[in-house]
Amino acid sequence: MGYSSAQAAGAATLLGLLRDGRPRTRAELVAESGMGRSSVTERVDDLLGLGLVTRADNAPSTGGRPASAFAFNPGARVVLAADVGATHAKITVSDLSGAVLVEEDLPLDIASGPEVVLALVCARGEDLLERAGRARDELLGIGLGLPGPVEHASGRPTNPPIMPGWDGFDVPGHVRERLGAPVLVDNDVNIMALGEHRTHWYDWPHMLFVKVATGIGCGLITDGRLYRGSQGVAGDMGHVQLPHVSEVPCRCGNVGCLEAVASGAALAARLTEQDIPARTSGDVVSLARSGSVPTLTLVRQAGRRIGEVLATAVSFLNPSGIVIGGALSQAGEHLIAGVREVVYRRSLPLATQDLRIVQSRAGERAGVYGAALMVVEHALSPERLTASLAARGAA
Amino acid sequence: MGYSSAQAAGAATLLGLLRDGRPRTRAELVAESGMGRSSVTERVDDLLGLGLVTRADNAPSTGGRPASAFAFNPGARVVLAADVGATHAKITVSDLSGAVLVEEDLPLDIASGPEVVLALVCARGEDLLERAGRARDELLGIGLGLPGPVEHASGRPTNPPIMPGWDGFDVPGHVRERLGAPVLVDNDVNIMALGEHRTHWYDWPHMLFVKVATGIGCGLITDGRLYRGSQGVAGDMGHVQLPHVSEVPCRCGNVGCLEAVASGAALAARLTEQDIPARTSGDVVSLARSGSVPTLTLVRQAGRRIGEVLATAVSFLNPSGIVIGGALSQAGEHLIAGVREVVYRRSLPLATQDLRIVQSRAGERAGVYGAALMVVEHALSPERLTASLAARGAA
Repeated sequence: MGYSSAQAAGAATLLGLLRDGRPRTRAELVAESGMGRSSVTERVDDLLGLGLVTRADNAPSTGGRPASAFAFNPGARVVLAADVGATHAKITVSDLSGAVLVEEDLPLDIASGPEVVLALVCARGEDLLERAGRARDELLGIGLGLPGPVEHASGRPTNPPIMPGWDGFDVPGHVRERLGAPVLVDNDVNIMALGEHRTHWYDWPHMLFVKVATGIGCGLITDGRLYRGSQGVAGDMGHVQLPHVSEVPCRCGNVGCLEAVASGAALAARLTEQDIPARTSGDVVSLARSGSVPTLTLVRQAGRRIGEVLATAVSFLNPSGIVIGGALSQAGEHLIAGVREVVYRRSLPLATQDLRIVQSRAGERAGVYGAALMVVEHALSPERLTASLAARGAA
Repeated sequence: MGYSSAQAAGAATLLGLLRDGRPRTRAELVAESGMGRSSVTERVDDLLGLGLVTRADNAPSTGGRPASAFAFNPGARVVLAADVGATHAKITVSDLSGAVLVEEDLPLDIASGPEVVLALVCARGEDLLERAGRARDELLGIGLGLPGPVEHASGRPTNPPIMPGWDGFDVPGHVRERLGAPVLVDNDVNIMALGEHRTHWYDWPHMLFVKVATGIGCGLITDGRLYRGSQGVAGDMGHVQLPHVSEVPCRCGNVGCLEAVASGAALAARLTEQDIPARTSGDVVSLARSGSVPTLTLVRQAGRRIGEVLATAVSFLNPSGIVIGGALSQAGEHLIAGVREVVYRRSLPLATQDLRIVQSRAGERAGVYGAALMVVEHALSPERLTASLAARGAA
């Protein structure tokens, strides 16, 4: 028999409730979902059949015969996630809750091109699957983050400035051929925003995540979902021009971009000019932690400039919170203090009265959390569940 | 019997298809909705029962006995819409497609407070209903736009700067008591954005609508829906600060706001300083249309400054298009030319390659279209349809 979109939507609704980890009885599922009792029973059976839900009969009873309870089964399948940067990748195998089972950091050079980089990532992913003791056919899917703009629908990079050879490359097709599971690709800042939101700020409907590292980018969550924009380049704040620094050249070819004055690379260059040798964001963070006053001054000023651009975004988007992440956010409170100083001064009182500006809590794992959960949420969406249920019905 | 959320979602899906005005056979509805044949039949019966769908048996046949076709019935109910500004309101009675049946412009003073203003609007609304030949119980609902921030969930204005006496006033409760139908309230720029989008740019998933009049504000459409932000003040671009005009005082108490240098009021003040008397946006438009060179220069410069702020919004949001509306947008191509000049220079190539920047097409009716369609879309949502179907089932 066929599975209707309404049935799959019901299954997705139940999964959406159970994914918080708390087991529920049928009666609770009926009450919380607003679905009818018979629909709940049928959909729970579907989900038991797919293995996504299990019986949790040790649920606390209120006396008498305990009612059957049902729980999300995060171990039903696994996800391979890779957060690929310019010079290294973090690769994990996660369960369906996003929890990391095994992980590895892998040095690489993004400029060596997609075949070389993806071969490395796939090989290491296969090793990790084996280390996790999971078979290839247990893979629900693969989530990849790349350090440049990606057309999310096709998974192809579009004009990525620091990724020679990747423009238009069919990343999902290539990886799927090797690993045999569905592949979703997005840019690194988007997956970090998703990971940060899902693991720490789930209650915020609207969030901005700012990655301050070699470059500067922003991932937007609106109504709880990643917002990508019409060409998938939403959040590209690194190349917003600051009017009062119009002489500073940017690697993008323009002058006066935020990235040219406030990124880790820009700060390292300024410090080197002052005879304080620094090359990377990490060097800047080390100097800041060692108490270097010129470094702290520069970091705070970078925060103010990021704050200038964010103030406009706050006026337009009225988010619940802003999360500052990326390597440079590890330089202590100075970066975030500069951001707060300007955002709270420049934005409207109504837009800032409940606005929180905080440091990333997911830290280095933000990207892999996001890549894994992007795959899980896609696979458990009504559209994909329709296909899964239909395939099972046909089997 | 009870109506499940899945059934209401099915009904909403079918209505969503039929609202484009094209009649469809059951087979077409099955094909386009992805729903099962029996579900389509049941849901069409529900919608026939509510009067929202009618039989359209003059549908073109491909030979043999013509298949029954079904069409959305925009005349089933009516909506009262009011776009209330500082000094006047436009009030309409519309059908469920948003088409205006009768309309009236009404002078008023927003500062006379909510009781006086709402009494006027309600009285004129009742007159209009009568002129349209429709009874009070045919009212699906009432949509109101107000010239200040509104907490959409409660319909109460929050700290509206030009609306003394309105802060926290229960607008929906007050109007509902008088007219006996559900009331939705939003700020004027949001309803203009919705009206413009729904009548002319429905294919754009992400749109910015900028109202340039006495003040400057922006309404955001993301994923086809109004985006309001966490406190409902998204799009408040009028008080974004421009760094290079920091000496100009704004009515908000700050200095250097966009509104202080690029609004109709600001331009009128600049012209008056040059011994060209002007008081309102309308005066500026008249001068521009008469070819006053100082006016055209100021209007173009205002466009550039609006463009500076929009360039940052374009980098963050990557919209499909920007619509420029409001009284000052009637000053010819000069305003929009200034906007285009800066946005295309300042924003990223990927974000502007398909970006369109256009003049409002809905014009003065944008607000009432939006207010009416806000009510229709809310009433035809799955949640509200569940209630309507349940009420009918219980009757």
